[in-house]
Amino acid sequence: MKKLVLAYSGGLDTSYCAKYLSQEKGYEVHAVSVNTGGFTPEEKKEIEEKALKLGVATYSNIEAVDSFYNKVVKYLIFGNVLKNNTYPLSVSAERIVQAIEIVNYAKKIGAQYIAHGSTGAGNDQVRFDMIFQILAPEIEIITPIRDEQLSRQEEIGYLKKNGVDMSWEKAKYSINRGLWGTSVGGEETLTSHQSLPEEAYPSQLKSEGSQKIKLTFSQGELIAIDGKEDSPVKNIELLNSMASQYAIGRDIHVGDTIIGIKGRVGFEAAAPLIIIKAHHTLEKHVLTKWQQHHKEYLANWYGMLLHEGQYLDEVMRNIEVFLADTQKNVSGDVFVTLHPYRFVVDGIQSGHDLMNASFGSYGEMNKGWTADDAKGFIKINSNQNKIYYHVNKIN
Amino acid sequence: MKKLVLAYSGGLDTSYCAKYLSQEKGYEVHAVSVNTGGFTPEEKKEIEEKALKLGVATYSNIEAVDSFYNKVVKYLIFGNVLKNNTYPLSVSAERIVQAIEIVNYAKKIGAQYIAHGSTGAGNDQVRFDMIFQILAPEIEIITPIRDEQLSRQEEIGYLKKNGVDMSWEKAKYSINRGLWGTSVGGEETLTSHQSLPEEAYPSQLKSEGSQKIKLTFSQGELIAIDGKEDSPVKNIELLNSMASQYAIGRDIHVGDTIIGIKGRVGFEAAAPLIIIKAHHTLEKHVLTKWQQHHKEYLANWYGMLLHEGQYLDEVMRNIEVFLADTQKNVSGDVFVTLHPYRFVVDGIQSGHDLMNASFGSYGEMNKGWTADDAKGFIKINSNQNKIYYHVNKIN
Amino acid sequence: MKKLVLAYSGGLDTSYCAKYLSQEKGYEVHAVSVNTGGFTPEEKKEIEEKALKLGVATYSNIEAVDSFYNKVVKYLIFGNVLKNNTYPLSVSAERIVQAIEIVNYAKKIGAQYIAHGSTGAGNDQVRFDMIFQILAPEIEIITPIRDEQLSRQEEIGYLKKNGVDMSWEKAKYSINRGLWGTSVGGEETLTSHQSLPEEAYPSQLKSEGSQKIKLTFSQGELIAIDGKEDSPVKNIELLNSMASQYAIGRDIHVGDTIIGIKGRVGFEAAAPLIIIKAHHTLEKHVLTKWQQHHKEYLANWYGMLLHEGQYLDEVMRNIEVFLADTQKNVSGDVFVTLHPYRFVVDGIQSGHDLMNASFGSYGEMNKGWTADDAKGFIKINSNQNKIYYHVNKIN
Amino acid sequence: MKKLVLAYSGGLDTSYCAKYLSQEKGYEVHAVSVNTGGFTPEEKKEIEEKALKLGVATYSNIEAVDSFYNKVVKYLIFGNVLKNNTYPLSVSAERIVQAIEIVNYAKKIGAQYIAHGSTGAGNDQVRFDMIFQILAPEIEIITPIRDEQLSRQEEIGYLKKNGVDMSWEKAKYSINRGLWGTSVGGEETLTSHQSLPEEAYPSQLKSEGSQKIKLTFSQGELIAIDGKEDSPVKNIELLNSMASQYAIGRDIHVGDTIIGIKGRVGFEAAAPLIIIKAHHTLEKHVLTKWQQHHKEYLANWYGMLLHEGQYLDEVMRNIEVFLADTQKNVSGDVFVTLHPYRFVVDGIQSGHDLMNASFGSYGEMNKGWTADDAKGFIKINSNQNKIYYHVNKIN
Repeated sequence: MKKLVLAYSGGLDTSYCAKYLSQEKGYEVHAVSVNTGGFTPEEKKEIEEKALKLGVATYSNIEAVDSFYNKVVKYLIFGNVLKNNTYPLSVSAERIVQAIEIVNYAKKIGAQYIAHGSTGAGNDQVRFDMIFQILAPEIEIITPIRDEQLSRQEEIGYLKKNGVDMSWEKAKYSINRGLWGTSVGGEETLTSHQSLPEEAYPSQLKSEGSQKIKLTFSQGELIAIDGKEDSPVKNIELLNSMASQYAIGRDIHVGDTIIGIKGRVGFEAAAPLIIIKAHHTLEKHVLTKWQQHHKEYLANWYGMLLHEGQYLDEVMRNIEVFLADTQKNVSGDVFVTLHPYRFVVDGIQSGHDLMNASFGSYGEMNKGWTADDAKGFIKINSNQNKIYYHVNKIN
Repeated sequence: MKKLVLAYSGGLDTSYCAKYLSQEKGYEVHAVSVNTGGFTPEEKKEIEEKALKLGVATYSNIEAVDSFYNKVVKYLIFGNVLKNNTYPLSVSAERIVQAIEIVNYAKKIGAQYIAHGSTGAGNDQVRFDMIFQILAPEIEIITPIRDEQLSRQEEIGYLKKNGVDMSWEKAKYSINRGLWGTSVGGEETLTSHQSLPEEAYPSQLKSEGSQKIKLTFSQGELIAIDGKEDSPVKNIELLNSMASQYAIGRDIHVGDTIIGIKGRVGFEAAAPLIIIKAHHTLEKHVLTKWQQHHKEYLANWYGMLLHEGQYLDEVMRNIEVFLADTQKNVSGDVFVTLHPYRFVVDGIQSGHDLMNASFGSYGEMNKGWTADDAKGFIKINSNQNKIYYHVNKIN
Repeated sequence: MKKLVLAYSGGLDTSYCAKYLSQEKGYEVHAVSVNTGGFTPEEKKEIEEKALKLGVATYSNIEAVDSFYNKVVKYLIFGNVLKNNTYPLSVSAERIVQAIEIVNYAKKIGAQYIAHGSTGAGNDQVRFDMIFQILAPEIEIITPIRDEQLSRQEEIGYLKKNGVDMSWEKAKYSINRGLWGTSVGGEETLTSHQSLPEEAYPSQLKSEGSQKIKLTFSQGELIAIDGKEDSPVKNIELLNSMASQYAIGRDIHVGDTIIGIKGRVGFEAAAPLIIIKAHHTLEKHVLTKWQQHHKEYLANWYGMLLHEGQYLDEVMRNIEVFLADTQKNVSGDVFVTLHPYRFVVDGIQSGHDLMNASFGSYGEMNKGWTADDAKGFIKINSNQNKIYYHVNKIN
Repeated sequence: MKKLVLAYSGGLDTSYCAKYLSQEKGYEVHAVSVNTGGFTPEEKKEIEEKALKLGVATYSNIEAVDSFYNKVVKYLIFGNVLKNNTYPLSVSAERIVQAIEIVNYAKKIGAQYIAHGSTGAGNDQVRFDMIFQILAPEIEIITPIRDEQLSRQEEIGYLKKNGVDMSWEKAKYSINRGLWGTSVGGEETLTSHQSLPEEAYPSQLKSEGSQKIKLTFSQGELIAIDGKEDSPVKNIELLNSMASQYAIGRDIHVGDTIIGIKGRVGFEAAAPLIIIKAHHTLEKHVLTKWQQHHKEYLANWYGMLLHEGQYLDEVMRNIEVFLADTQKNVSGDVFVTLHPYRFVVDGIQSGHDLMNASFGSYGEMNKGWTADDAKGFIKINSNQNKIYYHVNKIN
């Protein structure tokens, strides 16, 4: 029997795959969903029921939120990664971990095939295929949606004809939810000029007024909110639920897809945006200038390669040890105020703060150096250009 | 007679310099103020009156807002420059242009000395001294405030004793205003944890509700607002006055000073923050991935070197031609909505938009390539890591 | 009639294409060779005769050595580009210009097809296809060698059967010669551990002893050798013939191909290696530290993108204007000594030399600054780490 | 009693310091030399005798060659660091380790002062002062040579007058020898155009002919030569003595000093240059493209910051963990041939070699992918520029 693991989400495309691959193609389909923080218990139940109705051989859900945090999200925080200074890479990051979990599952059960429901015009196919091929070159990849390019109607028709009569009404906005943010697509994001309407976003404003909170970081990880310690994953979830009351974290990003076309996506990522700005502010106090500079260079690349499905390249491990090493002193409290639709980072407190009054404050002279020291510093700093202008007769 | 040009701002420090240098040191003091967009007509009149009361030989005001835009601001826009992804370098940029104007003035009138009122613990002394020394190594720099480290009371006492009886009440917040933003310092910014109070900011919320505006860029420059064309400088001023009604553009930055200590500063920069995000969004639609990537690298360096007073290094000219060359197609409209304390970039419209429906949309297959093309692309993209994992027996 | 332009080199693969495409596939084949500096007059004659024997509709040779220099080589010199600090990108650079000339020719004569003889396992197919597709998306690309994967014997057999009886003995080493160097492949380069034997290299040692020469650069271009002015192209050719007497410029490079596998190639590139080291030495004297630093960053990328067939990306034009702008003062003489198998750059002389005795020499105090200036400079340069070590209790 | 540690080299300047500081200034002078691989046993004996004749309180020699290797040289190899692609940073690297050893010694014996013999016009003063100030801000730095700017004659006169009658004939070339290379200065290096004569270099050609050797690396470290295992330090020393027979490793570098002027220095660094090229070649076989790319970026910075005395910046530790992490698979043999004045890296052999025949060779089709895969890869790689050229009507 041809054993196949299907990356299953409960949506129309992967439901079609489940039915089609078992019925028409004779695979033994093992449907697997991977939860990276986006599924409620109800949704998990619903996904399972759907899978079973489709007649798959087995269905499993893999809880991967901790693995998601430890493999990727942690480093996105260490690196303050926002793609093009905008997008926290919510979906890109999830796909990597989902693919790794799927391929490991397939190897565990000895499957010869892995199927996924991506089209041929997006990033996800690249992330899935690359990780599958690199980690299990002996497993064949099956992608009916990409190969057949069926319309929604054709897929629904096929399912109905084969006795699967579920409701597949297309939501006006397609949503992908996970620990590190929610992406939102709709007819507006297919244009360049339209913004998403208020109702497209999953969280709606519930709190007016404002709220002060304290985020505590230890070596770059969020270990407490308002003094209550919990795991970083729980803290991200908590912060997200607090900030969602204020409808914080919305934006639209247009970016370069791996396949060379531009893609536009709305997103809501309250916790990611708050954590990154808070963490970054703390770093500006505790890291040296060159640490910040080179961290930013490497972190940008970490984001780009992650986005482009290159997570398994060994350079990603090298960058991770670099980023982790920079976090030794990134510990302290960050004070944040939540407002409707926005937040403000008020300040930080840290035993590693290099803005240290005992060494003299900005703009005020002090015991550390004299006016003559400053003049000497500047004079010698001018040397090269003084010579340059003289030699080249510019002044 | 020892001819001296004094960089004069009308504040206590430079007023002390004016009096002290002419009376005690026997210089013929030519006070010069340089307007980079921060002075109202009333302020200019007041600065002039003060200078004359202090008994300077001559007083001049140099209007440098256009030179400021053309020498620096334009490139900060082209590069989307925000120091540490936060601060538009409002003050750093002004000082450069002020120094250049002062030194040119000094050379024109044949002065042997230039004086400025900076202390020995800040960035401004470095920017001023470096530019003076490089462009006019033959002119000696005189800095009484840095050398003598007098207290405010001592300066006021000296002036009073010498018949200058002006009111020098210290404002609770020190403000530096210019075309490219206003910096705000106060007792809170001397701490790491306190934010500035509402009243510290120069603009107060006057409009509730929201307002949609259209910014038109041509080759990277802001040439029109809501369809009304004007010079980029005028447009920046107009946008600033529109957005200030909404109290947009406030934040606090902590950064690395040139002299190695951390400095914290509040700022309000409505137009700079809106223009940079609007311009950046437009670029994400019209530039290639690698253009964006390398622009960001060079623009970060442009900001860092500008901040550190290295504006005259020839590499800055090299970077400027690069940045200007990237702007050839950065033309189009950007739609922005102003809200109280925040703004949203809604979208763009451009004849150079690479997100072009005729080539296929993100996530939807199209005539440009087939499923097999996509699979081949991914397979070959996987080659190196497939070999790496195989050779090193990781999978 | 189906009009086809064939990129023709006179070798077995493209000869097979010429015959096969006209006879079996019914194309009107217009064979075109592009000379980027590698063909002697005899070779050109021979290529032409072969083409005509194969029965092509027309044959043309395009002289592209000047275009090669102006489009690519010039910038490789400005940027001191050596891939992985080793390889002057001799072949990569040629292919780009050949592809552009071919596609322009095809458009001029209104061809609907372009054919080339690359296999599916190398870099050249990528460079050719990409440039053809981008500049002429309406033209279809035909690649029999890639598609059919025939052996040499099969190709020779086909030609013989069809009345083309030329001698196709396989040279022991495959050679690709051009203005910017010669690549050499053989059975040794298919291993990782073997070097090429002496006789594999096109130039053999003819001069013992040594020879001093003077290279004169003007704004980064080689305008004279030993005081005799000529065009940069002629100077490169002359230098190459001089240095080849000494068998200078051999090495083996192993690099990352565009398709993700490693490729190893021997090369001989006397003029490129001498010019780049000479030019680089001159730059070390006349450019500022930051000019050199950022030039190197961009030039590395220029080399990488060129190698990978991305020459048409607009960022390449942006980098070119940057590189050209840095060359304003890169003028002067460079003294070089040629020895058997090696060369030495002895020194330079330039009116823009920043190593200028009047400003003080390395290691000797001078009038430019005092001991106290130096101490102040160092003290303030230590500030940040002094604070860091104090705050973090490291010392 | 005022306890002072003097960084002592046995030369005229530090001998003057020893005498002057004890006799005129009343310090208890503890002379310390730090051997980073440059001293022969005879030289060590001679330095000790000199120190004692000068009447210092104590003299010690610290053997720091292992610490030099482990703290710095190892990372220079991991990073293939050549300043401006030329200079292995021989001296810069030594100074750092010497300064650290000196300051630790001073703290151990409870000294209140450290003295060194640098002038005010070079790099060494910066490296010494910075490390002393950061690691021991409580210790005062004493620099008679920088402060008093005496001529050689004045120093010799003072010593003679005070009963120290040694011979101080100035060598025609000043030499600084260490594990990682020897620098050579002379009247030629004070010009821009003259090269050093043959006799200026410490090693003279003794072997004609050529010699094949095998260097074995394990995780980036040189663990064996020709199959004989030894410590990396011993291997560097051995390789140096082998290659010096061939007078390999000479060049002249002109670089940017920390104080902004250009400095020119000759050097002989046979082992460093051979090891770096051998190690680099091995890396080109075993690392991915992106590992090589980002290693080079960080390693360049490691070299620049080391050169400029910023070794103690925490970012250097971050870079070190990155570099070390990249070396996991950098193991294998490298084959090198030594010739008079030059060497050739012939090839490598490694179990981690990514140039692996079983995955297909460069230029030959294979089972890994098909012609159609290659075409799909190229087509999709062309997407962005195809769109760019179409939208902007360039083709």
